Amino acid sequence: MSKKKPVIIIDAMGGDFAPGITVDGTCQMAAESNAHFIMVGDEAKIKAELEKHTHNKDQFSIVHTDEEITMEDSPRKAIREKKNASVLLAARMLKEGKGDAMVSAGSTAAVILAASLYIKRIPGVKRAAIGTIFPTLKEDRKASLYSVIMDVGANINNTPDDLVHYAYMGKTYLEEVFDFDNPSIALLNIGAEEHKGNDTMKAAYKILKSRADLNFIGNIEGNDITNGKSDVIVSEGMLGNVAMKSVEGAGESVKRLAEIAMKGKLVWKLGLLLLSGGIKKLMKVASYEEYGGAPIFGFDKLVVKNHGRCNAYAYKNGLRTALKAVEMNMIGFMRDSISKFESDKEKGTTQES
Amino acid sequence: MSKKKPVIIIDAMGGDFAPGITVDGTCQMAAESNAHFIMVGDEAKIKAELEKHTHNKDQFSIVHTDEEITMEDSPRKAIREKKNASVLLAARMLKEGKGDAMVSAGSTAAVILAASLYIKRIPGVKRAAIGTIFPTLKEDRKASLYSVIMDVGANINNTPDDLVHYAYMGKTYLEEVFDFDNPSIALLNIGAEEHKGNDTMKAAYKILKSRADLNFIGNIEGNDITNGKSDVIVSEGMLGNVAMKSVEGAGESVKRLAEIAMKGKLVWKLGLLLLSGGIKKLMKVASYEEYGGAPIFGFDKLVVKNHGRCNAYAYKNGLRTALKAVEMNMIGFMRDSISKFESDKEKGTTQES
Repeated sequence: MSKKKPVIIIDAMGGDFAPGITVDGTCQMAAESNAHFIMVGDEAKIKAELEKHTHNKDQFSIVHTDEEITMEDSPRKAIREKKNASVLLAARMLKEGKGDAMVSAGSTAAVILAASLYIKRIPGVKRAAIGTIFPTLKEDRKASLYSVIMDVGANINNTPDDLVHYAYMGKTYLEEVFDFDNPSIALLNIGAEEHKGNDTMKAAYKILKSRADLNFIGNIEGNDITNGKSDVIVSEGMLGNVAMKSVEGAGESVKRLAEIAMKGKLVWKLGLLLLSGGIKKLMKVASYEEYGGAPIFGFDKLVVKNHGRCNAYAYKNGLRTALKAVEMNMIGFMRDSISKFESDKEKGTTQES
Repeated sequence: MSKKKPVIIIDAMGGDFAPGITVDGTCQMAAESNAHFIMVGDEAKIKAELEKHTHNKDQFSIVHTDEEITMEDSPRKAIREKKNASVLLAARMLKEGKGDAMVSAGSTAAVILAASLYIKRIPGVKRAAIGTIFPTLKEDRKASLYSVIMDVGANINNTPDDLVHYAYMGKTYLEEVFDFDNPSIALLNIGAEEHKGNDTMKAAYKILKSRADLNFIGNIEGNDITNGKSDVIVSEGMLGNVAMKSVEGAGESVKRLAEIAMKGKLVWKLGLLLLSGGIKKLMKVASYEEYGGAPIFGFDKLVVKNHGRCNAYAYKNGLRTALKAVEMNMIGFMRDSISKFESDKEKGTTQES
């Protein structure tokens, strides 16, 4: 490991509760690491927040800007009109090598646009992806509970090569940040058989199967998402988006069902009360706060998106993801594996898409 | 209402537990109606099963064939090689006007292939659809619990017009079979705004919005499926398939979570036990047995697909769907509304797709 201290550029004004939460979460992470944090945003506001928390001043610097993109702004318009908005300034600083990663809890569209404007993509990669980590019920109880699905909404159209790139990026993410050993990879489809799905899926299946460095287990269907049959789920953006949101909606409906049951009878109420300890324990596993934040995949420098409504604890965990990815050189490994794939493709030693 | 007795053609050999379950379920429905049932299949086996149940002989006739398509057969191959398989014979009889509807619990692929071979589509309709009824948690507690989503897997590609046809067919299904009054209709998409999604979705949105005879409420996302925001969910086949299966998988995972919790602690076990009355009641609402069977949408004659593993009670409920649809002239209303849409399109009084 390099002894060089990691430097994280923080879009301090991004997110629903910024800069309060962003500063609080960063102070929490600073206390557990030797990293340096460049806080980009309104200096007076950031200073006022910093004063509320014990922190080592050497770990922080502030780059002032009084422009910010709010949730009310149209991201496309704001990016043209607010050149010094904190998210854009952070992305420019990342481009200029002033830090190892940038972290923002701003709107996903704004973060992707800012990154697209200043950061190159990993050579070969045409489309960025949003990957979502979610807890699953894996058969092997000793296995990590998590899986990652990508893309869940950055794209509405994908080529077979995009999906192969997602496989390599998802694999590297789980290996470097979550310590998985050779994670399994599956393609989200409408049937298990190789010939199922549209032309993109059929072609992607063939390429994925031909790659010896991918632990490809074939197609999975929607009902295999939450049981953790696969560690990485590669998906066209539109399908991944609808799948993840459907799971989310079903979870909310179960919660509401329980509330309705609770209103029904005293005996049910008592039952729910007795269960609540167990439910809380399970909910903790399922909580995004535990793994808050996820890279936007495909850029040649590390861009981490934290949840817009996250609390300080979740923000800290998002920073932990960023630090781990920097420490493990995640982007470098992604670049290497995709470069190998692209070069094999040129040499004709892999399936053509 | 016509006084003519409805005649239902039954693929008596279709389904995992045929002809035992198919005959049992038909006898149950016969006892509650004045319909006539033509049982297509192995005469000796059907007779042996009929003898096990009290039934009015006048309501039954048998058309013998000793060929059947089993779950082990490739449907495409079987359809070429077993011209007298019960499902094909039933479809031919429906074509020839020997009954008002056919019902089969055979494999979905076999039923769709059989219907495609002999039954014309509703004029204008290019692609058949599979619609799935599912229970939801609607805000208005007096509203029907059910919604229908279509297509959930008959197609991987759709045109905007297909989606509009699905809207009309879903609306008519809920109105005529489930007594809905002007059901709401939404398009499954990756965002609520009109401009979201692929070109098919954008074009379908415009047409749906322009139709005064559709109660179109706009786009919904995956998380709105189970909360019943819309009565009819119109969806491209691949998205609908993944969405429904994701919800199904999430439901199974919740059940498994509860089982894991149950193993944990005696106090949780007691809690689950106390809750079980409420859970059972809720599960009954969610059970497919209550509304077993669904039309394959798009054919100009009524083809109802019952669940392959259904029990006699669910089979009976599938027959009830068929009888209600015949009685209400569901196919006729679908034909009329689609014909009106197609004619408006020709006259240029609706959005072009």
